[in-house]
Amino acid sequence: MHTLAIVAKRDKQEAVALAARIRERYPHLTVLAERYLSHSLGWPRVEDRELAQRAELVIVLGGDGTLIYTARLLAGRGVPILGVNLGSLGFMTEIPVDELFSTLDEVLAGRFKVDSRMKLTCRLVREGKTVLEDEVLNDVVINKGALARISDHETSIDGVPITTYKADGMILATPTGSTAYSLSAGGPIVHPSVDCTILSPICSHALTQRSIVVPADRTIRVTLRKETADTYLTLDGQTGHSLQGGDCIEVVRSPNRVNLVRNPHMAYFTILRQKLHWGER
Amino acid sequence: MHTLAIVAKRDKQEAVALAARIRERYPHLTVLAERYLSHSLGWPRVEDRELAQRAELVIVLGGDGTLIYTARLLAGRGVPILGVNLGSLGFMTEIPVDELFSTLDEVLAGRFKVDSRMKLTCRLVREGKTVLEDEVLNDVVINKGALARISDHETSIDGVPITTYKADGMILATPTGSTAYSLSAGGPIVHPSVDCTILSPICSHALTQRSIVVPADRTIRVTLRKETADTYLTLDGQTGHSLQGGDCIEVVRSPNRVNLVRNPHMAYFTILRQKLHWGER
Amino acid sequence: MHTLAIVAKRDKQEAVALAARIRERYPHLTVLAERYLSHSLGWPRVEDRELAQRAELVIVLGGDGTLIYTARLLAGRGVPILGVNLGSLGFMTEIPVDELFSTLDEVLAGRFKVDSRMKLTCRLVREGKTVLEDEVLNDVVINKGALARISDHETSIDGVPITTYKADGMILATPTGSTAYSLSAGGPIVHPSVDCTILSPICSHALTQRSIVVPADRTIRVTLRKETADTYLTLDGQTGHSLQGGDCIEVVRSPNRVNLVRNPHMAYFTILRQKLHWGER
Amino acid sequence: MHTLAIVAKRDKQEAVALAARIRERYPHLTVLAERYLSHSLGWPRVEDRELAQRAELVIVLGGDGTLIYTARLLAGRGVPILGVNLGSLGFMTEIPVDELFSTLDEVLAGRFKVDSRMKLTCRLVREGKTVLEDEVLNDVVINKGALARISDHETSIDGVPITTYKADGMILATPTGSTAYSLSAGGPIVHPSVDCTILSPICSHALTQRSIVVPADRTIRVTLRKETADTYLTLDGQTGHSLQGGDCIEVVRSPNRVNLVRNPHMAYFTILRQKLHWGER
Repeated sequence: MHTLAIVAKRDKQEAVALAARIRERYPHLTVLAERYLSHSLGWPRVEDRELAQRAELVIVLGGDGTLIYTARLLAGRGVPILGVNLGSLGFMTEIPVDELFSTLDEVLAGRFKVDSRMKLTCRLVREGKTVLEDEVLNDVVINKGALARISDHETSIDGVPITTYKADGMILATPTGSTAYSLSAGGPIVHPSVDCTILSPICSHALTQRSIVVPADRTIRVTLRKETADTYLTLDGQTGHSLQGGDCIEVVRSPNRVNLVRNPHMAYFTILRQKLHWGER
Repeated sequence: MHTLAIVAKRDKQEAVALAARIRERYPHLTVLAERYLSHSLGWPRVEDRELAQRAELVIVLGGDGTLIYTARLLAGRGVPILGVNLGSLGFMTEIPVDELFSTLDEVLAGRFKVDSRMKLTCRLVREGKTVLEDEVLNDVVINKGALARISDHETSIDGVPITTYKADGMILATPTGSTAYSLSAGGPIVHPSVDCTILSPICSHALTQRSIVVPADRTIRVTLRKETADTYLTLDGQTGHSLQGGDCIEVVRSPNRVNLVRNPHMAYFTILRQKLHWGER
Repeated sequence: MHTLAIVAKRDKQEAVALAARIRERYPHLTVLAERYLSHSLGWPRVEDRELAQRAELVIVLGGDGTLIYTARLLAGRGVPILGVNLGSLGFMTEIPVDELFSTLDEVLAGRFKVDSRMKLTCRLVREGKTVLEDEVLNDVVINKGALARISDHETSIDGVPITTYKADGMILATPTGSTAYSLSAGGPIVHPSVDCTILSPICSHALTQRSIVVPADRTIRVTLRKETADTYLTLDGQTGHSLQGGDCIEVVRSPNRVNLVRNPHMAYFTILRQKLHWGER
Repeated sequence: MHTLAIVAKRDKQEAVALAARIRERYPHLTVLAERYLSHSLGWPRVEDRELAQRAELVIVLGGDGTLIYTARLLAGRGVPILGVNLGSLGFMTEIPVDELFSTLDEVLAGRFKVDSRMKLTCRLVREGKTVLEDEVLNDVVINKGALARISDHETSIDGVPITTYKADGMILATPTGSTAYSLSAGGPIVHPSVDCTILSPICSHALTQRSIVVPADRTIRVTLRKETADTYLTLDGQTGHSLQGGDCIEVVRSPNRVNLVRNPHMAYFTILRQKLHWGER
């Protein structure tokens, strides 16, 4: 590895100092910083696209939100991401600050394992044409506006109709995203190695409509009724799009994956236990 | 009783015909119709306010939505409401069309019982001033826009802080409203005679935050954090208001009630059983 | 008040020492101790029945389990109960040990408020005869044995059939009991001042069968099918009875109440907040 | 295929007649019947073991319970099973009676597809020794007796502790079993092709303890505390075993599978839709 990239949570002074120390410690490497961080550091500006193409390892300084932002920035590129949590433990930012340099030394020496996470491809099909195609690491959310009425979501899997969810919205989550919004909507916790998509209705009108865990290679389609209005598509909780009546949202496993550098001292369930306060009485 | 008023679901031809038959059958009574229905019937227009003041009995031709609309129209007036369902059985529109006239004869002869339903008063307090005050029969809903982030809802009861709900929103429901939105959000079914308010978070971030059933005479206050944006207040699913950071929503039992004419053949639990398909396997 | 009674959690040395100190501090009062505690203290043995009849105030040293045991021991007598928690904070044992004497001084001086809690009367009717009648402060639980099949629970309220719950069992809880077993089974949190009974199925086969909150003065009847076997009735989690096919369990609000001495520094919601870790992130 | 076996729901006259018709229609084939059915038919008795070894196709006449019984009877043998529902549609008995012969003709002609379902191996380890080893198609259930107190279930996955579930019990289900007991306990619906085990606590004391979906190749271990009593292990809802304090239940995907003959007109989601009444309003 010759080129590192650093992405940090906005306005985190601690991140700026850490970025400077990283460059200092590895003078033989090229260390790039994401636009906002570059600006704070006084480093030359690098465009997102260039950064995504050149980086061989990306260090994330922040929390899960910053990591998801980074995964979106990298788009299809599967370079390893080292998530360092600056605040509280994240589901994906597993490395504590005081282990940053020891972990980085190991990674640069090639001694590390990655946790390869599934992504979903989301297509928005309007009047037969794909008007949007993007990928998510956490979830695709279809949600009505606060003042809109309950919506009908005609849902099919590989072309077989399942049911029409009358609900505030629908969440289509990866296993990684199972502990985010889907969990709040009543969905199960799914280990990242299970190859599946989780479909969770938001405040379903019908009490029998529970979360469904679907094989990841199946194409899930949610179609909005013609008269639907004031409804939105949100990708990874970060980018939003307005939907129209008749729109169809297609979701299936992406060929691209996100590769997280593993903290050897932190199993998935250890993080879960800590995040959900399972140790407590 | 000398003055009846009729409120119907918009664009229901069946309702127009029924209204005409009601006037025909009771020529000695004054029969008013709500604006839209008057227009369809070619009757003289009566303003909502006048109708609400003059009516001694209100006949609702439609479903639960029309009944809630009627309760809002009557505001504080507690005249009996006779709910006739034109489509499928409603929680509150208990009288089937073919029993309309026999029931009406009984009611006009003074042989009927009412089911007196609690309402909630909702006040929106902004910078110390009450900028809105209204009543609901079903629920007060605080909800974020589809693209907004999860909100903090600092909640207190009679001034004692309970918790800060990190959630998509909050529902404050009457027992009547317990089978509406609150049920979809995971709340309990509450019999209309229990004197209480149901507080249900929508997609709470914290898994320990369940629905709470609070005595109806307690004042529940939900305060939004200063930085809250894109959040809305919806009353009975019918009228919406934009909220601002720092807004406080106060909810307590109203002195006014809604009096529904009872179907003697239909207990509350019989309706529940039918609406929730409890008879089925 | 001239006669105090003390009931303590078994095998708590701390309780024995506290009981001795109570008698020492109030030499002009008669201080009785429950059988097991008497034995540990070397005091003369007092039968439960005598203790329940003579006590004008009961001090509970232990946790919620000890308090419920005490409420059962007092049966219909409504003397104030002062709950002192020896371990972690209880829902009903609100007084910390270090406030025991200051609180007791206030209570003996007549300066205290009680929180009057509803109880349920439970009758077991077999072949038309009441074979058991008892009261609970928390809950009446009907539950199948571990190896038994799912049971049918024909449920009616004031004689109106609601539904037949196909479930592992049924919980009929007071508001006090709403935070105990019923909460684990998916029921709501109900403030102790709401006058109601909570009916929660345990692992209901039908997903539409949610918890129902029923006015406390209604009689709830659960009847087991003729072929039911290996099914049990548990009162307040403390006493168990074997049930037979065809048995009917009747539950309604008791005329007796349990009067808890209030901790003036601890509102109900403050305890709830602490017990459910609502303060935490 | 030369040897068919028939297993039927006990005391179903319809099944006896059908079995006779099957033998009549295929005179060139050997048609065996399970012990109870043989007795009703007056056919020579065949022991379960022999039947399991000789059958090349098993026809199940009954419901899901009969099919699970059959899967247990076949133990490790993966011969195709044709499930015919005699009563209402089953999740696994997909073939309606009136399609039995047409389907059977196709199967015997080699024109059929199977749906290969995962099983779980369950080992009961007591004081370091495996005292029981068996397989399930639906679920492994650990459950306390009706009068026992809540139990502690120390749970680990591949040796990593997750949490100690304080609960009435634990369900470890296959995807096939996700729509059985696990669903009643709040678990998700999982498509049979997802390679996973679902771990669902029964009435968990801690509200944060949700269902977890675990990769099927991980070994889940649930260990009971030393003081645990009156606790039972139930396999596929059919066979029960008494557990002791300190017992460890190990569950992992079995190398054996159950092969169900597919109804070409019935996708998994079509059955789900029908079983859960998703078509209805």
